Amino acid sequence: MSVLVSKKFANMKPSATREILKATSDPNVIAFAGGSPAVEAFPCDAVKKVSAEILDENPVSALVYGVSEGYEPLRQTLKGWLKKRSNIGTDDDSVIITAGGTQVIDITARIMTDEGDTVICEEPSFVGSLNAFRSHGLKLKGVPIDSDGMNIEALEKTIKQNPDAKFIYTIPNFQNPGGTTLSLEKRKAMYRLAKENGLVILEDDPYGTLRVDGEDIPSIKSMDTDGIVIYAGSFSKILAPGIRVAYAVVPKAFLQAFVIGKQVSDVHTGVLNQMIIQRWYEEYDVDAHIEEIRKIYRKKLNLMCDCLDKYCPEIEYVRPQGGLFLWARLPENIDMLDYCKRLVENKVAVVPGTAFMINEDSPCHYIRLNFSTPSDENIVKGIEIMARVLKEY
Amino acid sequence: MSVLVSKKFANMKPSATREILKATSDPNVIAFAGGSPAVEAFPCDAVKKVSAEILDENPVSALVYGVSEGYEPLRQTLKGWLKKRSNIGTDDDSVIITAGGTQVIDITARIMTDEGDTVICEEPSFVGSLNAFRSHGLKLKGVPIDSDGMNIEALEKTIKQNPDAKFIYTIPNFQNPGGTTLSLEKRKAMYRLAKENGLVILEDDPYGTLRVDGEDIPSIKSMDTDGIVIYAGSFSKILAPGIRVAYAVVPKAFLQAFVIGKQVSDVHTGVLNQMIIQRWYEEYDVDAHIEEIRKIYRKKLNLMCDCLDKYCPEIEYVRPQGGLFLWARLPENIDMLDYCKRLVENKVAVVPGTAFMINEDSPCHYIRLNFSTPSDENIVKGIEIMARVLKEY
Repeated sequence: MSVLVSKKFANMKPSATREILKATSDPNVIAFAGGSPAVEAFPCDAVKKVSAEILDENPVSALVYGVSEGYEPLRQTLKGWLKKRSNIGTDDDSVIITAGGTQVIDITARIMTDEGDTVICEEPSFVGSLNAFRSHGLKLKGVPIDSDGMNIEALEKTIKQNPDAKFIYTIPNFQNPGGTTLSLEKRKAMYRLAKENGLVILEDDPYGTLRVDGEDIPSIKSMDTDGIVIYAGSFSKILAPGIRVAYAVVPKAFLQAFVIGKQVSDVHTGVLNQMIIQRWYEEYDVDAHIEEIRKIYRKKLNLMCDCLDKYCPEIEYVRPQGGLFLWARLPENIDMLDYCKRLVENKVAVVPGTAFMINEDSPCHYIRLNFSTPSDENIVKGIEIMARVLKEY
Repeated sequence: MSVLVSKKFANMKPSATREILKATSDPNVIAFAGGSPAVEAFPCDAVKKVSAEILDENPVSALVYGVSEGYEPLRQTLKGWLKKRSNIGTDDDSVIITAGGTQVIDITARIMTDEGDTVICEEPSFVGSLNAFRSHGLKLKGVPIDSDGMNIEALEKTIKQNPDAKFIYTIPNFQNPGGTTLSLEKRKAMYRLAKENGLVILEDDPYGTLRVDGEDIPSIKSMDTDGIVIYAGSFSKILAPGIRVAYAVVPKAFLQAFVIGKQVSDVHTGVLNQMIIQRWYEEYDVDAHIEEIRKIYRKKLNLMCDCLDKYCPEIEYVRPQGGLFLWARLPENIDMLDYCKRLVENKVAVVPGTAFMINEDSPCHYIRLNFSTPSDENIVKGIEIMARVLKEY
């Protein structure tokens, strides 16, 4: 990278996931590396129908400038839907529409921190968010995760050691990449610790609706009586990612800054895109659609787990209760990065676990597997190839 | 604003323009305050037709994740179109698609600067860009503009006084709000100064295609043999702003950082949105469309100038050769902010010139008038009201 770019960008590398995604545009590669929803889960007919209606009835309304907060009918719809479905949002909260969930992460970092400040997050965590934090020149302090989410003792210690921390970043449901879900008890403990230490919680919940097993656990935002939680939800996984519509639920204290953060990022989210989502709510049963896609994911998750158990019993993982990802631990004798390279040579793409570490040079024996994007046939075939390559060692 | 937000955000205010835009959602207010293209210039039928085709033929392709660089066919189309139309782009340049022009400004600031660095810009300048710079904690150094654009002697002095400056931000064509166009000689001088002093130029050109009078002047980017100019173009003014598609032409040295900057901002621009633009190029004559909208703007600009000359001869302005804005100087005896307030009370909205100053408390006798959004009837009516309110002083 040129010496001309900023100090905070000089050491940044493109997200390994997105670089691998690019490599896997080769249709002959079995993609366990992506994070896309299953294409059979996209409501294509609905998108087609509502788009045509919008552009028939009042095309100008979909083409003019919108306000930075988002399309007002959609904001109202989401406010009601989130309250009813998940008890999220108080009178002091506002729903702000963003262009994808990453933008909520980016805006929060921008408005809450100055260069050199610290963010506390799970380790491993979503590389896209880690890179957003890095791009603002922030220090990352990772807290290890147990099978029921962030280790709270370690969190407490990390908070004590980093008085310059501004917020805790967490993916409580079906964590990316860990697949773990933060227990109710730990959610309460995290909220209490944040409150006691003057920290904000950034609750990133793109997968919460994609539970395939067990009972929903209340979001941290639903406990937020103090206005210290910014909640991020998205339509990337329940409608489609290419439409780039997501939202933040923002407490009053941060609202003005958040709206300015959106304004300086991209003025407002595409109006047609927002109107498509709004009409989808008006004309279709979104909750019923979510139930349908849960069935697709349940089947795919079970298939991948069954194949791993059958063909790769030496690979360990904790079966997630939802989401899109499996976090799989290779046997000790395997060089993880070498294994990933050999898989690509054999036309299977997975994400090396190091991509999700705060320091990518840390030793890591994990890989992330996505079960939502590949076809059932390719899930079987891909895991068979993984088994065959394992035996080469 | 809460003490919880970052130092760099603690003093930020929402853009006056967008706040006024919100106020003027009242349909009874004559909006001279916006920056929207004329709604009669939107190619609504084309958008409707190509959207239907995309969602008929291959809806999944419009709904899946895209790559951060942008939709490849559109990147190729723009590369060819920019070369042919404006001689922009060398083999070392890449076209990157963004969600609106502001995002080019924001990403450039993010990748080129660290908190506390300096950006040199015209004063007055587009408040949205100034706020994007402020949101990264940057210092702004303004250079006054003459009737032929940035004063070059002042620029040279500002560069000397600010060795920590990272780039020069300029709107060379029909500057917002000044309406001025940077002369060819000054473009060459600015390029030479940037090169000699190791500075990058961020050339923001959303209005360049909207010339209604005189001859096109080569862009600074077309002279960029050294790879030091990032060029920003947009479809907000030639197709429609609500679609949020713009682009940057980025030299090789900044490409990787720019793509990462896009990735951490919002992963990628909406795929359907990009495909609509691409199909528009494939099925329609974009250059012919631009000729048509130039006619609309020529008529509106002339109408507004004629009305000002007739009803408000005491208001001074330099007639712009294109763009969307008039920068009008009130008589000395008028309190500018008080006049703007009285206009709103009389159902006419204009933007106070202070909104475009680096320090909003600087004395300023100007207002910005937009002639593209209001109907012809409202242009006449609005200027009549402006004349009437002037006479109250």
